[in-house]
Amino acid sequence: MAYDLYWISGSPNAWRTMLTLEYKGIPYVSHRLDPSKQEHKTPEFLALNPRGKVPVLNADGVVISESIAIMAFLERAHPTQPLFGETPEETGLVWQRIFEVVNTVREPIETGIIRALSYGEALKDPEAMRAAAALATDSLDWLEGVLTQQPYLAGSKLSAADIVTMPILQMLVRFGSRPDAVALGLNFHALANSHPSISAWLDRIEQVQGYDAAYPPHWRV
Amino acid sequence: MAYDLYWISGSPNAWRTMLTLEYKGIPYVSHRLDPSKQEHKTPEFLALNPRGKVPVLNADGVVISESIAIMAFLERAHPTQPLFGETPEETGLVWQRIFEVVNTVREPIETGIIRALSYGEALKDPEAMRAAAALATDSLDWLEGVLTQQPYLAGSKLSAADIVTMPILQMLVRFGSRPDAVALGLNFHALANSHPSISAWLDRIEQVQGYDAAYPPHWRV
Repeated sequence: MAYDLYWISGSPNAWRTMLTLEYKGIPYVSHRLDPSKQEHKTPEFLALNPRGKVPVLNADGVVISESIAIMAFLERAHPTQPLFGETPEETGLVWQRIFEVVNTVREPIETGIIRALSYGEALKDPEAMRAAAALATDSLDWLEGVLTQQPYLAGSKLSAADIVTMPILQMLVRFGSRPDAVALGLNFHALANSHPSISAWLDRIEQVQGYDAAYPPHWRV
Repeated sequence: MAYDLYWISGSPNAWRTMLTLEYKGIPYVSHRLDPSKQEHKTPEFLALNPRGKVPVLNADGVVISESIAIMAFLERAHPTQPLFGETPEETGLVWQRIFEVVNTVREPIETGIIRALSYGEALKDPEAMRAAAALATDSLDWLEGVLTQQPYLAGSKLSAADIVTMPILQMLVRFGSRPDAVALGLNFHALANSHPSISAWLDRIEQVQGYDAAYPPHWRV
Protein backbone atom coordinates (compact mmCIF):
# COMPACT_ATOMS: atom_id res chain seq x y z
CA MET A 1 0.00 0.00 0.00
CA ALA A 2 1.36 3.37 -0.95
CA TYR A 3 -0.64 6.57 -1.01
CA ASP A 4 0.36 9.80 -2.69
CA LEU A 5 -1.48 12.94 -1.64
CA TYR A 6 -1.32 16.02 -3.89
CA TRP A 7 -2.23 19.21 -2.06
CA ILE A 8 -1.84 22.97 -1.83
CA SER A 9 -1.15 24.71 1.46
CA GLY A 10 -4.26 26.53 2.66
CA SER A 11 -6.71 24.71 0.39
CA PRO A 12 -9.56 23.79 2.74
CA ASN A 13 -10.42 20.77 0.60
CA ALA A 14 -6.86 19.46 0.73
CA TRP A 15 -6.61 20.22 4.44
CA ARG A 16 -9.53 17.96 5.34
CA THR A 17 -8.05 14.98 3.49
CA MET A 18 -4.63 15.45 5.06
CA LEU A 19 -6.15 15.70 8.53
CA THR A 20 -8.08 12.48 7.85
CA LEU A 21 -4.85 10.69 6.90
CA GLU A 22 -3.06 12.06 9.97
CA TYR A 23 -5.95 11.36 12.33
CA LYS A 24 -6.18 7.77 11.20
CA GLY A 25 -2.39 7.38 11.23
CA ILE A 26 -2.26 6.30 7.59
CA PRO A 27 1.18 6.64 5.97
CA TYR A 28 1.33 8.71 2.79
CA VAL A 29 3.77 10.50 0.56
CA SER A 30 3.13 14.23 0.52
CA HIS A 31 3.27 16.14 -2.76
CA ARG A 32 2.81 19.82 -2.03
CA LEU A 33 2.03 21.78 -5.19
CA ASP A 34 2.91 25.45 -5.56
CA PRO A 35 -0.05 27.28 -7.11
CA SER A 36 2.12 30.34 -7.88
CA LYS A 37 4.04 28.07 -10.28
CA GLN A 38 0.80 26.56 -11.62
CA GLU A 39 1.95 23.15 -10.45
CA HIS A 40 -1.71 22.06 -10.31
CA LYS A 41 -2.02 22.71 -14.05
CA THR A 42 0.93 20.71 -15.34
CA PRO A 43 0.28 17.88 -17.82
CA GLU A 44 1.38 15.39 -15.15
CA PHE A 45 -1.14 16.67 -12.63
CA LEU A 46 -3.93 17.10 -15.18
CA ALA A 47 -3.44 13.44 -16.05
CA LEU A 48 -4.39 12.66 -12.43
CA ASN A 49 -7.25 15.18 -12.28
CA PRO A 50 -8.39 16.83 -15.51
CA ARG A 51 -10.16 19.48 -13.42
CA GLY A 52 -6.76 20.68 -12.17
CA LYS A 53 -7.87 20.75 -8.55
CA VAL A 54 -6.44 19.49 -5.30
CA PRO A 55 -6.65 17.28 -3.39
CA VAL A 56 -5.93 14.14 -5.35
CA LEU A 57 -5.12 10.82 -3.73
CA ASN A 58 -3.30 8.19 -5.74
CA ALA A 59 -3.84 4.91 -3.91
CA ASP A 60 -1.71 2.31 -5.65
CA GLY A 61 -2.90 3.50 -9.04
CA VAL A 62 -6.50 4.18 -8.04
CA VAL A 63 -6.77 7.93 -8.42
CA ILE A 64 -9.48 9.71 -6.43
CA SER A 65 -10.38 13.38 -6.51
CA GLU A 66 -13.09 15.30 -4.62
CA SER A 67 -12.04 15.75 -1.02
CA ILE A 68 -15.02 14.15 0.71
CA ALA A 69 -14.81 11.16 -1.64
CA ILE A 70 -11.20 10.72 -0.58
CA MET A 71 -12.34 10.77 3.06
CA ALA A 72 -15.01 8.14 2.33
CA PHE A 73 -12.43 5.97 0.58
CA LEU A 74 -10.02 6.25 3.52
CA GLU A 75 -12.81 5.32 5.95
CA ARG A 76 -13.66 2.20 3.99
CA ALA A 77 -10.02 1.16 3.55
CA HIS A 78 -9.02 2.06 7.13
CA PRO A 79 -12.06 1.67 9.37
CA THR A 80 -10.25 2.12 12.68
CA GLN A 81 -10.57 5.57 14.24
CA PRO A 82 -13.96 5.78 12.52
CA LEU A 83 -15.13 9.15 11.24
CA PHE A 84 -18.37 8.20 9.50
CA GLY A 85 -20.22 6.66 12.45
CA GLU A 86 -20.29 3.21 13.97
CA THR A 87 -23.98 2.47 13.41
CA PRO A 88 -26.24 3.15 10.42
CA GLU A 89 -27.94 5.91 12.40
CA GLU A 90 -24.63 7.62 13.19
CA THR A 91 -23.56 7.25 9.57
CA GLY A 92 -26.78 8.87 8.41
CA LEU A 93 -26.36 11.81 10.73
CA VAL A 94 -22.70 12.36 9.81
CA TRP A 95 -23.64 12.50 6.13
CA GLN A 96 -26.62 14.73 6.86
CA ARG A 97 -24.33 17.23 8.54
CA ILE A 98 -21.81 17.00 5.70
CA PHE A 99 -24.47 17.77 3.10
CA GLU A 100 -26.00 20.53 5.21
CA VAL A 101 -22.55 22.14 5.29
CA VAL A 102 -21.94 21.51 1.58
CA ASN A 103 -25.37 22.86 0.63
CA THR A 104 -25.84 25.77 3.02
CA VAL A 105 -22.56 26.77 4.69
CA ARG A 106 -19.90 26.39 2.05
CA GLU A 107 -21.27 28.71 -0.60
CA PRO A 108 -21.98 31.81 1.53
CA ILE A 109 -18.69 31.53 3.40
CA GLU A 110 -16.27 30.31 0.73
CA THR A 111 -17.69 32.13 -2.26
CA GLY A 112 -19.40 35.02 -0.55
CA ILE A 113 -16.65 36.01 1.87
CA ILE A 114 -13.35 34.18 1.48
CA ARG A 115 -13.08 34.47 -2.28
CA ALA A 116 -13.94 38.17 -2.28
CA LEU A 117 -11.43 38.89 0.47
CA SER A 118 -8.71 36.77 -1.13
CA TYR A 119 -9.14 38.69 -4.40
CA GLY A 120 -8.80 41.97 -2.49
CA GLU A 121 -12.16 43.11 -3.82
CA ALA A 122 -14.03 43.60 -0.56
CA LEU A 123 -13.65 47.38 -0.35
CA LYS A 124 -14.78 47.90 -3.95
CA ASP A 125 -18.40 47.14 -3.07
CA PRO A 126 -18.98 47.41 0.67
CA GLU A 127 -22.75 47.01 0.35
CA ALA A 128 -22.39 43.71 -1.52
CA MET A 129 -19.87 42.51 1.07
CA ARG A 130 -22.21 43.35 3.92
CA ALA A 131 -25.06 41.50 2.19
CA ALA A 132 -22.77 38.50 1.71
CA ALA A 133 -21.72 38.77 5.35
CA ALA A 134 -25.36 38.60 6.44
CA LEU A 135 -25.81 35.33 4.53
CA ALA A 136 -22.57 33.94 5.93
CA THR A 137 -23.70 34.91 9.43
CA ASP A 138 -26.93 32.98 8.92
CA SER A 139 -24.89 29.81 8.35
CA LEU A 140 -22.68 30.60 11.33
CA ASP A 141 -25.78 31.01 13.46
CA TRP A 142 -26.99 27.58 12.38
CA LEU A 143 -23.61 26.02 13.20
CA GLU A 144 -23.60 27.82 16.54
CA GLY A 145 -27.03 26.39 17.34
CA VAL A 146 -25.87 22.84 16.61
CA LEU A 147 -22.63 23.23 18.56
CA THR A 148 -24.36 24.77 21.55
CA GLN A 149 -26.30 21.54 21.96
CA GLN A 150 -23.45 19.08 21.40
CA PRO A 151 -19.65 19.18 21.25
CA TYR A 152 -19.32 18.02 17.64
CA LEU A 153 -21.44 18.52 14.54
CA ALA A 154 -22.84 14.98 14.51
CA GLY A 155 -23.06 14.45 18.25
CA SER A 156 -20.69 13.60 21.07
CA LYS A 157 -17.82 12.34 18.93
CA LEU A 158 -15.53 13.86 16.34
CA SER A 159 -16.68 12.87 12.85
CA ALA A 160 -15.99 13.54 9.21
CA ALA A 161 -18.54 16.36 9.41
CA ASP A 162 -16.22 18.28 11.74
CA ILE A 163 -13.17 17.62 9.58
CA VAL A 164 -15.04 18.71 6.46
CA THR A 165 -16.20 21.94 8.10
CA MET A 166 -13.25 23.05 10.23
CA PRO A 167 -11.01 24.30 7.38
CA ILE A 168 -13.83 26.48 6.02
CA LEU A 169 -14.20 28.13 9.43
CA GLN A 170 -10.44 28.53 9.94
CA MET A 171 -10.25 30.19 6.53
CA LEU A 172 -13.08 32.51 7.48
CA VAL A 173 -11.33 33.59 10.68
CA ARG A 174 -8.02 34.06 8.86
CA PHE A 175 -9.44 36.11 6.00
CA GLY A 176 -11.87 37.86 8.30
CA SER A 177 -8.88 39.20 10.26
CA ARG A 178 -7.54 41.12 7.26
CA PRO A 179 -7.60 44.90 7.62
CA ASP A 180 -10.19 45.38 4.86
CA ALA A 181 -12.54 42.86 6.47
CA VAL A 182 -12.17 44.47 9.89
CA ALA A 183 -12.59 47.94 8.36
CA LEU A 184 -15.87 46.83 6.80
CA GLY A 185 -17.07 45.62 10.19
CA LEU A 186 -17.62 42.07 8.93
CA ASN A 187 -16.73 40.77 12.40
CA PHE A 188 -15.54 37.31 11.41
CA HIS A 189 -12.24 37.72 13.26
CA ALA A 190 -13.84 37.57 16.70
CA LEU A 191 -15.85 34.34 16.67
CA ALA A 192 -15.17 33.85 20.39
CA ASN A 193 -17.46 36.81 21.00
CA SER A 194 -20.04 36.39 18.26
CA HIS A 195 -20.21 32.58 18.12
CA PRO A 196 -18.62 31.13 21.26
CA SER A 197 -19.72 27.54 20.63
CA ILE A 198 -18.08 27.53 17.18
CA SER A 199 -14.97 29.04 18.71
CA ALA A 200 -14.83 26.38 21.46
CA TRP A 201 -15.37 23.67 18.83
CA LEU A 202 -12.43 25.00 16.79
CA ASP A 203 -10.30 24.90 19.95
CA ARG A 204 -11.44 21.32 20.56
CA ILE A 205 -10.46 20.23 17.05
CA GLU A 206 -7.01 21.76 17.49
CA GLN A 207 -6.40 19.03 20.08
CA VAL A 208 -7.21 16.22 17.63
CA GLN A 209 -4.46 13.77 16.72
CA GLY A 210 -2.71 14.96 13.57
CA TYR A 211 -3.97 18.54 13.70
CA ASP A 212 -0.52 20.11 13.82
CA ALA A 213 0.83 17.91 11.04
CA ALA A 214 -2.02 18.88 8.72
CA TYR A 215 -2.03 22.60 9.57
CA PRO A 216 -1.30 24.71 6.46
CA PRO A 217 2.47 25.27 6.64
CA HIS A 218 2.45 28.71 5.05
CA TRP A 219 0.05 29.93 7.75
CA ARG A 220 2.78 29.39 10.34
CA VAL A 221 5.09 31.93 8.77
CA MET B 1 -38.04 -1.65 11.80
CA ALA B 2 -40.39 0.86 10.31
CA TYR B 3 -39.42 3.62 7.90
CA ASP B 4 -41.48 6.63 7.01
CA LEU B 5 -40.51 8.54 3.87
CA TYR B 6 -41.80 12.09 3.37
CA TRP B 7 -41.63 13.21 -0.23
CA ILE B 8 -43.04 15.46 -2.94
CA SER B 9 -43.82 14.16 -6.40
CA GLY B 10 -41.25 15.42 -8.87
CA SER B 11 -38.66 16.47 -6.29
CA PRO B 12 -35.42 15.05 -7.68
CA ASN B 13 -33.99 14.76 -4.17
CA ALA B 14 -36.99 12.78 -2.94
CA TRP B 15 -37.00 10.65 -6.08
CA ARG B 16 -33.47 9.37 -5.52
CA THR B 17 -34.24 8.24 -1.98
CA MET B 18 -37.43 6.47 -3.01
CA LEU B 19 -35.65 4.69 -5.84
CA THR B 20 -32.97 3.57 -3.37
CA LEU B 21 -35.64 2.10 -1.08
CA GLU B 22 -37.38 0.40 -4.00
CA TYR B 23 -34.16 -0.88 -5.57
CA LYS B 24 -33.05 -2.43 -2.31
CA GLY B 25 -36.54 -3.78 -1.62
CA ILE B 26 -36.78 -2.04 1.75
CA PRO B 27 -40.34 -1.67 3.09
CA TYR B 28 -41.45 1.85 3.96
CA VAL B 29 -44.56 3.89 4.60
CA SER B 30 -45.00 6.59 1.98
CA HIS B 31 -46.08 10.09 3.03
CA ARG B 32 -46.61 12.16 -0.08
CA LEU B 33 -46.79 15.87 0.75
CA ASP B 34 -48.71 18.33 -1.41
CA PRO B 35 -46.60 21.46 -1.92
CA SER B 36 -49.64 23.40 -3.21
CA LYS B 37 -51.09 22.99 0.29
CA GLN B 38 -47.74 23.82 1.90
CA GLU B 39 -47.71 20.43 3.56
CA HIS B 40 -43.91 20.64 3.77
CA LYS B 41 -44.23 23.75 5.96
CA THR B 42 -46.62 22.46 8.62
CA PRO B 43 -45.49 22.46 12.27
CA GLU B 44 -45.51 18.65 12.19
CA PHE B 45 -43.18 18.49 9.22
CA LEU B 46 -40.95 21.33 10.41
CA ALA B 47 -40.48 19.34 13.61
CA LEU B 48 -38.92 16.61 11.43
CA ASN B 49 -36.92 18.99 9.24
CA PRO B 50 -36.69 22.65 10.31
CA ARG B 51 -35.51 23.48 6.78
CA GLY B 52 -38.94 22.45 5.46
CA LYS B 53 -37.48 20.33 2.70
CA VAL B 54 -38.09 16.85 1.41
CA PRO B 55 -37.04 14.11 1.54
CA VAL B 56 -37.05 13.15 5.18
CA LEU B 57 -36.69 9.59 6.40
CA ASN B 58 -37.90 8.71 9.87
CA ALA B 59 -36.24 5.42 10.75
CA ASP B 60 -37.72 4.28 14.03
CA GLY B 61 -37.34 7.75 15.50
CA VAL B 62 -33.98 8.53 13.89
CA VAL B 63 -34.83 11.37 11.54
CA ILE B 64 -32.54 11.95 8.59
CA SER B 65 -32.74 14.71 6.02
CA GLU B 66 -30.50 15.47 3.02
CA SER B 67 -31.20 12.98 0.24
CA ILE B 68 -27.71 11.59 -0.24
CA ALA B 69 -27.32 11.15 3.53
CA ILE B 70 -30.51 9.09 3.50
CA MET B 71 -29.01 6.95 0.73
CA ALA B 72 -25.79 6.46 2.74
CA PHE B 73 -27.84 5.48 5.79
CA LEU B 74 -29.86 2.95 3.79
CA GLU B 75 -26.67 1.46 2.34
CA ARG B 76 -25.20 0.99 5.80
CA ALA B 77 -28.41 -0.46 7.27
CA HIS B 78 -29.20 -2.64 4.20
CA PRO B 79 -25.93 -3.56 2.52
CA THR B 80 -27.39 -6.05 0.05
CA GLN B 81 -27.88 -4.74 -3.49
CA PRO B 82 -24.92 -2.45 -2.80
CA LEU B 83 -24.94 1.02 -4.34
CA PHE B 84 -21.78 2.51 -2.82
CA GLY B 85 -19.22 0.01 -4.08
CA GLU B 86 -18.00 -3.34 -2.81
CA THR B 87 -14.35 -2.39 -2.35
CA PRO B 88 -12.74 0.76 -0.94
CA GLU B 89 -11.68 1.72 -4.45
CA GLU B 90 -15.22 1.38 -5.81
CA THR B 91 -16.56 3.32 -2.83
CA GLY B 92 -14.08 6.11 -3.50
CA LEU B 93 -15.06 6.36 -7.14
CA VAL B 94 -18.80 6.30 -6.42
CA TRP B 95 -18.39 9.20 -4.00
CA GLN B 96 -16.10 11.04 -6.40
CA ARG B 97 -18.80 10.91 -9.06
CA ILE B 98 -21.47 11.99 -6.58
CA PHE B 99 -19.47 15.05 -5.57
CA GLU B 100 -18.55 15.86 -9.15
CA VAL B 101 -22.27 15.92 -9.91
CA VAL B 102 -23.11 17.87 -6.74
CA ASN B 103 -20.36 20.40 -7.40
CA THR B 104 -20.45 20.83 -11.17
CA VAL B 105 -23.66 19.41 -12.66
CA ARG B 106 -26.42 20.21 -10.19
CA GLU B 107 -26.10 23.98 -10.07
CA PRO B 108 -26.05 24.79 -13.80
CA ILE B 109 -28.87 22.36 -14.57
CA GLU B 110 -31.13 22.69 -11.53
CA THR B 111 -30.66 26.38 -10.80
CA GLY B 112 -29.65 27.63 -14.23
CA ILE B 113 -32.27 25.83 -16.31
CA ILE B 114 -34.93 23.92 -14.39
CA ARG B 115 -35.73 26.63 -11.85
CA ALA B 116 -35.97 29.35 -14.50
CA LEU B 117 -38.24 27.21 -16.67
CA SER B 118 -40.41 26.12 -13.75
CA TYR B 119 -40.94 29.77 -12.77
CA GLY B 120 -41.96 30.54 -16.35
CA GLU B 121 -39.24 33.19 -16.59
CA ALA B 122 -37.22 31.82 -19.47
CA LEU B 123 -38.63 34.08 -22.18
CA LYS B 124 -38.11 37.21 -20.10
CA ASP B 125 -34.38 37.16 -20.64
CA PRO B 126 -33.45 34.92 -23.58
CA GLU B 127 -29.79 35.97 -23.51
CA ALA B 128 -29.42 34.94 -19.87
CA MET B 129 -31.16 31.63 -20.59
CA ARG B 130 -28.83 30.91 -23.49
CA ALA B 131 -25.81 31.68 -21.30
CA ALA B 132 -27.18 29.35 -18.62
CA ALA B 133 -27.82 26.72 -21.28
CA ALA B 134 -24.18 26.90 -22.38
CA LEU B 135 -23.05 26.17 -18.82
CA ALA B 136 -25.57 23.34 -18.48
CA THR B 137 -24.36 21.91 -21.78
CA ASP B 138 -20.79 21.89 -20.47
CA SER B 139 -21.90 19.60 -17.65
CA LEU B 140 -23.87 17.44 -20.06
CA ASP B 141 -20.78 17.13 -22.22
CA TRP B 142 -18.77 15.94 -19.24
CA LEU B 143 -21.44 13.36 -18.35
CA GLU B 144 -21.58 12.26 -21.98
CA GLY B 145 -17.82 11.73 -21.96
CA VAL B 146 -17.99 9.54 -18.87
CA LEU B 147 -20.94 7.53 -20.16
CA THR B 148 -19.39 6.99 -23.57
CA GLN B 149 -16.57 5.12 -21.86
CA GLN B 150 -18.65 3.05 -19.44
CA PRO B 151 -22.31 2.12 -18.95
CA TYR B 152 -22.71 3.74 -15.51
CA LEU B 153 -21.20 6.81 -13.89
CA ALA B 154 -18.89 4.87 -11.60
CA GLY B 155 -18.06 2.01 -13.97
CA SER B 156 -19.74 -1.18 -15.11
CA LYS B 157 -22.36 -1.36 -12.37
CA LEU B 158 -25.29 0.77 -11.29
CA SER B 159 -24.32 2.84 -8.25
CA ALA B 160 -25.60 5.59 -6.02
CA ALA B 161 -23.95 8.06 -8.40
CA ASP B 162 -26.42 7.08 -11.11
CA ILE B 163 -29.40 7.26 -8.76
CA VAL B 164 -28.29 10.68 -7.50
CA THR B 165 -27.92 12.03 -11.02
CA MET B 166 -30.79 10.46 -12.97
CA PRO B 167 -33.63 12.61 -11.53
CA ILE B 168 -31.74 15.81 -12.39
CA LEU B 169 -31.46 14.67 -16.00
CA GLN B 170 -35.08 13.50 -16.20
CA MET B 171 -36.15 16.90 -14.88
CA LEU B 172 -34.01 18.62 -17.50
CA VAL B 173 -35.59 16.62 -20.32
CA ARG B 174 -39.10 17.24 -18.96
CA PHE B 175 -38.69 20.99 -18.48
CA GLY B 176 -36.60 21.27 -21.62
CA SER B 177 -39.59 19.95 -23.59
CA ARG B 178 -41.77 22.92 -22.61
CA PRO B 179 -42.74 25.18 -25.48
CA ASP B 180 -40.75 28.15 -24.14
CA ALA B 181 -37.61 26.05 -23.82
CA VAL B 182 -38.00 24.65 -27.32
CA ALA B 183 -38.78 28.14 -28.68
CA LEU B 184 -35.54 29.41 -27.19
CA GLY B 185 -33.64 26.61 -28.93
CA LEU B 186 -32.27 25.29 -25.64
CA ASN B 187 -32.32 21.79 -27.12
CA PHE B 188 -32.58 19.81 -23.91
CA HIS B 189 -35.60 17.85 -25.13
CA ALA B 190 -33.63 15.85 -27.65
CA LEU B 191 -30.80 14.28 -25.66
CA ALA B 192 -30.86 11.21 -27.88
CA ASN B 193 -29.46 13.41 -30.65
CA SER B 194 -27.22 15.75 -28.70
CA HIS B 195 -25.99 13.37 -25.99
CA PRO B 196 -26.71 9.79 -27.05
CA SER B 197 -24.72 8.15 -24.26
CA ILE B 198 -26.67 10.04 -21.59
CA SER B 199 -29.89 9.09 -23.36
CA ALA B 200 -28.93 5.40 -23.48
CA TRP B 201 -27.95 5.55 -19.81
CA LEU B 202 -31.37 7.01 -18.90
CA ASP B 203 -32.98 4.14 -20.85
CA ARG B 204 -30.80 1.67 -18.95
CA ILE B 205 -31.83 3.07 -15.58
CA GLU B 206 -35.51 2.81 -16.54
CA GLN B 207 -35.01 -0.97 -16.42
CA VAL B 208 -33.72 -0.92 -12.85
CA GLN B 209 -35.75 -2.72 -10.19
CA GLY B 210 -38.12 -0.27 -8.55
CA TYR B 211 -37.92 2.40 -11.26
CA ASP B 212 -41.64 2.38 -12.01
CA ALA B 213 -42.64 2.45 -8.34
CA ALA B 214 -40.47 5.51 -7.69
CA TYR B 215 -41.44 7.40 -10.85
CA PRO B 216 -43.11 10.74 -10.01
CA PRO B 217 -46.82 9.90 -10.08
CA HIS B 218 -47.98 13.30 -11.30
CA TRP B 219 -45.72 12.95 -14.35
CA ARG B 220 -47.85 10.01 -15.52
CA VAL B 221 -50.95 12.13 -15.92
